[in-house]
Amino acid sequence: MSEAVSSGSMIVVSNRLPFVLKRNEATGRLERKASAGGLVTAVAPVVIQGNGLWVGWPGIHLDDPNEPIPESDPNDQTPTAGLLSKKVVAVHVERGMFDSYYNGCCNGTFWPLFHSMPDRAVFSAEHWKNYYKVNQLFAEKTMSALMSLILEQKDSVATPLVWIHDYHLMLAANWVRQAAEEKDMRCKMGFFLHIPFPPWDIFRLFPWADEILQGMLGNDMVGFHIEDYCLNFVDCCQRRLGCRVDRKGMLVEHGGRTVRVRPLPIGIPFDRFVQLAESAPRVMLTTNQKVVLGVDRLDYTKGLVHRLKAFECLLEKYPEHLEKVTLLQISVPSRTDVKEYQDLKEEMDQLVGRINGRFTTYNWSPIRYIYGCVSQDELAAFYRDAAVAFVTPLRDGMNLVAKEFVACQINEPPGVLVVSPFAGAGEMMHEALICNPYEIHQAADVLHRALTMPEDERTLRMNYLRRREKVHDVNYWMKSFLKAMGSLIEEDGDEVLPTTMQPVTMDDFDEYLAKYVGTTHKLALLLDYDGTLAPIAPHPDLAILPNETKNVLERLSNMSDVYIAIISGRNVNNVKSMVGIEGITYAGNHGLEILHPDGSKFVHPMPVEYEDKVSELLKCLQEQVCKEGAWVENKGALLTFHYRETPMGLRPEMVAKARELIIKAGFKAGDAHCAIEAKPPVQWNKGRASLYILRTAFGVDWSERIRIIYAGDDVTDEDAMEALKGMAATFRVTSSHIVRTAAERRLPSTDSILTMLKWVERHMNRREPRQETGGGTAYRRPSRGNKNGGSVKMEMSYIPKPTTPEPPK
Amino acid sequence: MSEAVSSGSMIVVSNRLPFVLKRNEATGRLERKASAGGLVTAVAPVVIQGNGLWVGWPGIHLDDPNEPIPESDPNDQTPTAGLLSKKVVAVHVERGMFDSYYNGCCNGTFWPLFHSMPDRAVFSAEHWKNYYKVNQLFAEKTMSALMSLILEQKDSVATPLVWIHDYHLMLAANWVRQAAEEKDMRCKMGFFLHIPFPPWDIFRLFPWADEILQGMLGNDMVGFHIEDYCLNFVDCCQRRLGCRVDRKGMLVEHGGRTVRVRPLPIGIPFDRFVQLAESAPRVMLTTNQKVVLGVDRLDYTKGLVHRLKAFECLLEKYPEHLEKVTLLQISVPSRTDVKEYQDLKEEMDQLVGRINGRFTTYNWSPIRYIYGCVSQDELAAFYRDAAVAFVTPLRDGMNLVAKEFVACQINEPPGVLVVSPFAGAGEMMHEALICNPYEIHQAADVLHRALTMPEDERTLRMNYLRRREKVHDVNYWMKSFLKAMGSLIEEDGDEVLPTTMQPVTMDDFDEYLAKYVGTTHKLALLLDYDGTLAPIAPHPDLAILPNETKNVLERLSNMSDVYIAIISGRNVNNVKSMVGIEGITYAGNHGLEILHPDGSKFVHPMPVEYEDKVSELLKCLQEQVCKEGAWVENKGALLTFHYRETPMGLRPEMVAKARELIIKAGFKAGDAHCAIEAKPPVQWNKGRASLYILRTAFGVDWSERIRIIYAGDDVTDEDAMEALKGMAATFRVTSSHIVRTAAERRLPSTDSILTMLKWVERHMNRREPRQETGGGTAYRRPSRGNKNGGSVKMEMSYIPKPTTPEPPK
Repeated sequence: MSEAVSSGSMIVVSNRLPFVLKRNEATGRLERKASAGGLVTAVAPVVIQGNGLWVGWPGIHLDDPNEPIPESDPNDQTPTAGLLSKKVVAVHVERGMFDSYYNGCCNGTFWPLFHSMPDRAVFSAEHWKNYYKVNQLFAEKTMSALMSLILEQKDSVATPLVWIHDYHLMLAANWVRQAAEEKDMRCKMGFFLHIPFPPWDIFRLFPWADEILQGMLGNDMVGFHIEDYCLNFVDCCQRRLGCRVDRKGMLVEHGGRTVRVRPLPIGIPFDRFVQLAESAPRVMLTTNQKVVLGVDRLDYTKGLVHRLKAFECLLEKYPEHLEKVTLLQISVPSRTDVKEYQDLKEEMDQLVGRINGRFTTYNWSPIRYIYGCVSQDELAAFYRDAAVAFVTPLRDGMNLVAKEFVACQINEPPGVLVVSPFAGAGEMMHEALICNPYEIHQAADVLHRALTMPEDERTLRMNYLRRREKVHDVNYWMKSFLKAMGSLIEEDGDEVLPTTMQPVTMDDFDEYLAKYVGTTHKLALLLDYDGTLAPIAPHPDLAILPNETKNVLERLSNMSDVYIAIISGRNVNNVKSMVGIEGITYAGNHGLEILHPDGSKFVHPMPVEYEDKVSELLKCLQEQVCKEGAWVENKGALLTFHYRETPMGLRPEMVAKARELIIKAGFKAGDAHCAIEAKPPVQWNKGRASLYILRTAFGVDWSERIRIIYAGDDVTDEDAMEALKGMAATFRVTSSHIVRTAAERRLPSTDSILTMLKWVERHMNRREPRQETGGGTAYRRPSRGNKNGGSVKMEMSYIPKPTTPEPPK
Repeated sequence: MSEAVSSGSMIVVSNRLPFVLKRNEATGRLERKASAGGLVTAVAPVVIQGNGLWVGWPGIHLDDPNEPIPESDPNDQTPTAGLLSKKVVAVHVERGMFDSYYNGCCNGTFWPLFHSMPDRAVFSAEHWKNYYKVNQLFAEKTMSALMSLILEQKDSVATPLVWIHDYHLMLAANWVRQAAEEKDMRCKMGFFLHIPFPPWDIFRLFPWADEILQGMLGNDMVGFHIEDYCLNFVDCCQRRLGCRVDRKGMLVEHGGRTVRVRPLPIGIPFDRFVQLAESAPRVMLTTNQKVVLGVDRLDYTKGLVHRLKAFECLLEKYPEHLEKVTLLQISVPSRTDVKEYQDLKEEMDQLVGRINGRFTTYNWSPIRYIYGCVSQDELAAFYRDAAVAFVTPLRDGMNLVAKEFVACQINEPPGVLVVSPFAGAGEMMHEALICNPYEIHQAADVLHRALTMPEDERTLRMNYLRRREKVHDVNYWMKSFLKAMGSLIEEDGDEVLPTTMQPVTMDDFDEYLAKYVGTTHKLALLLDYDGTLAPIAPHPDLAILPNETKNVLERLSNMSDVYIAIISGRNVNNVKSMVGIEGITYAGNHGLEILHPDGSKFVHPMPVEYEDKVSELLKCLQEQVCKEGAWVENKGALLTFHYRETPMGLRPEMVAKARELIIKAGFKAGDAHCAIEAKPPVQWNKGRASLYILRTAFGVDWSERIRIIYAGDDVTDEDAMEALKGMAATFRVTSSHIVRTAAERRLPSTDSILTMLKWVERHMNRREPRQETGGGTAYRRPSRGNKNGGSVKMEMSYIPKPTTPEPPK
């Protein structure tokens, strides 16, 4: 694995450290208890050799979180022995919060939901809040780890790698990314999910689905076991977030970046299992028995009850197996403090008792049921000597038992693997016999086929299975991860998928906009200015409209069927001069002032007392918080406090103070790009303004004749997207990582808005010539006099009711 | 709707008739009790005007199934009043079977499964068996109805229409189709599912998923409420059945036919609800209250508990609504004899009590909970006068309450519709406020937004919603169905989707075969003859190999990397002479005889006594059942009894007799195309033979160097597909309707097998030139001497163990 090291140190972030801490009751000291899992075996050496770090919970709640982590025992032979305590970052979480995060959210919500068992999932805002906080805590620890790593390895040219694991930590990436960007530190981030990722129809039930997806998209690469999970994830990103995706190349565009989605089926330490099987003594001594083996954590996803019933059905349906076949079921205790799991244990106990009671003879019991753990040696012996492994989970991310079994099948002739199609292993190990555990008669038939399969077919199938697992072992998986991260060079024969999304082209809009831009409707384009039409600049005066955009807008404004309104947070005259196109509508101050194409102006009524208050607040802000590059923009009815040029470290305090002053003065404080806006407390926003503009321009029944496209990049645009939701095509330009938006589609930049406008132009142009030929279509061209006619023959009967300002609280 | 009538009479098949029968306790006579649902309102007139029929269960178990159905009451004003009793076909099902079918399979399995609540679904072979039988019964009744219709309307040129409804009758179509084909009667068949169709990941849990899909594909058109359900269905057909599909055109190829899949969102009788709302007296008299309305059947899919909790949360979070808002929840009793439903009722009762206890004041209770039915008039008044309809199912096919509410919203200004995204209505009525019921805080926020929404936005949204429902009412739905069936001409502006699948082209194989035809492996083509390479003919001698197929096979056989074996049920010399290509392998008698390219021959050992038995059986069959066109083919080790030319009506008895004779003689009886095969009872079949051929040709470790394609059309090919499952690309040619197959892909005809062979040729050709250039690829061309060399340097150490014949039972 030395290739890996050359690619920069690795920080692994997982819910648990690769060992747990236990207090030795005699000495009172903490001791490590190593994990033996395949994952740790593969990953720990890479971390250690590359001088990396491991971030995780130590498995114990300490009274003193500063109590040092012990070094490993000198006799420790496990892969984590070399992990020095200074390379371990323990994350301590307050007991109650941890319980809510771990038992509540991770195992009470995500575990059943991601296993497509939605009825078992609990959705709780409280647990979600704690999940969020714990993820934040992990992110902070990871960030410190990254900083220390970079400081230590100042001269290294290699980019460090952060690898976040599993459903416990789906939100952590963005905080790390953001902090790294702020501190200008390079790092690559990867995520791997060890459980299934469910289809859209299941995933969408989760109320904060968008935050989960954005959390995962905070990484550069997101890995799953199998392609189906990848495609489920890509679907969810497209449908829930409105991201551009490339299903074939498995790419998702988010926050201006391309995120790679990759199937990385995990393997096992194949050779180690072969060795174990070669050396393990025989433990099952009744040689005249064929053993059907089951090994599982006692969990409701594993299909244990179904399995016992299928075995019972086998004995009933195929009595030739009576006294000749034994089911050896090993159930490893799990989450024994949870009622659901206690109930399952009880059900299993009863069922084993009943079936054994029914079939047992003087010399034979059909089921041997072990509730407890077995050693690696014993396990390898069971795997080796079993005739059939009966691996039938109801749903399983991968299932390693299936893989360990085939590794240990060194006897000739070999046994047979039966696996559920609902496990990732069932998708990959297709030479196994596939068995749907839900129907016990069919399962019994498959089991019978396994028990009576001719030798040549058994050998053939097992050869295929072993060959695959030997090559695709856990080290191969580790390498695949590094390749997917771009940290290892592809080899000959590797399938190379694209890593960057094609730039936005006009084709991207075909499907979505075709719905909105019908052939007989006028089109209203409602557009924000800063960050939507014009790129954000250090100062508002520098946010110039690109020439190309201006030209397209101008041509569009001359089309008879297109109506344009620019809706901005700037004051109305300012935005008009920035855009500089005549004959269109401008709305300033988030719609408080509206300038119609005919020159008439709407100003939202404002209580007189607020006029004085504006100047008071302006003065107060200038005196108290305008330092270190911060300044206040006076927009008339509202004020914007800009802190874009203030050093990062000074911002929090300054922003808090400014917010306080604004609220104290009786204004609403709203967030914007590195700015806070002070708005008078009226119920008026870009949403209300949009509806007002459309009504004024087209009359009360406008909705029957107009189709709308709204595009914006700012949180203030959300009011419009909410108000127009379901009625307009909505785009949000999102260059940052996490954005909760009501928009249906996300676009990466002002450039892509330009492309969208070009699409609209081309589409509307195609409509125009039709009328020139005077064809007999249903579409009639409005006379030129009607151009922007809405605002001329404005429906005067509709005057919006001025909203009453809320009393300052 | 008179256009519909011109298109031929309609037979509607639904679980229930459009009325239920009740026994009048006073008179002892049966009486009709009419249904008032929108569906009946739209469909009944079409049936009546077109002189059609309605097939269904009458809602009562009669002691005497011949007891006549009464005519409607003379005062009956409902749409079914005109349905004469002679136009009604009542399906009577034995009580126990009905219970297992209806409560067990329909409501215990399909209802939760199709609503994506798999944990609640029970999978039972017994219930499934009864579902199957009841569907068969419905199909028989439908068939009789169709026959009587056709007899009655002899002179009509219009094709009758059979319309099967809902998840109760997903299997019925094929029996009707088959019988109609046998009797040479034209009919068009359509199906509509009134509940959701789940995604592949959920649907695949059902153990008999393939039968359900094939049952639905027995129709010419399959309709669902929304596009998502259509795409789920198309996915399932592709993944479970291996059908060719066209996702864009929404087509599925099955059994040589193209089945159309169409979104047909159901509507309501809009105008009727408007009338009701206009005339209904006010029933809610407290005018100072805003009413939030919920109307549901008391079912676990409706999210009632979540809804109450969300309302509680609203009162807690937004106390301004205290004493000003009331939740009026109407819960219609449902399946009150099922424990799950009793538990839900209890939970609701407690919850209402608790919340009311918590918030009630002297003059106000927050929840008015009506457990019972309300009249249409009252309902319309509630709909009209409510401020908000809170329609938040956890999953719902469509949900008509949302639609009825907007129809009745005739007051100015209107109220607000809140709807769950998990209802079909949520997908269509996008101007409503969308609310995820799983998170009560968010649901409370949406409810608050609905209660405080400005008038202009309320009006705008309601206008959109009402306009859509007015146009897309239930009659529009009826018309859409007829259009989708091709029974009504499309109008201007209708979106016209293709109705026929593109023929199979080489591109169809790209994705699937690329996996199997690697660049460094030899390719073994294992092919059945009759029905696979050569079209089925009335007599085996007439089943000639088309020239084009022969030419491709010949060219392939000359390629160094291609190995061909023809595996047939014919005797080996016969199949060789039919194909007529030298240098390839032939297996006859399902692999009992194998002729290698070098002329050596394998004959599966056969107990001597069976040789005599064969001639005895031959004689016996010829004497006793060879009449009316039936004859016996003598293939040496086995016999085939052909009845292809025997008249349909005589077959069942003749086939049963032949089968009896075969079994009595100690042979196995196997089904084939209009034939029964008598095989000696050895454990040898096309599967064992395939493995033997590959081993003999390529040595013990063949699997490392060979990729396999197997194609067949017969049930005997299934043995090979099972044995090779997961290790070979497998195709089954299926021209008939229902085929349970282990093959991964289905193809419609021998033509498409030819196309597949051409694809292979093109692909292998592309490989060949590479070697000519002597490039340094990892691939080395075997010397010409090795061509078909496997059988020359045949691994002699491997001689298959002859299987012992089973003793005749």
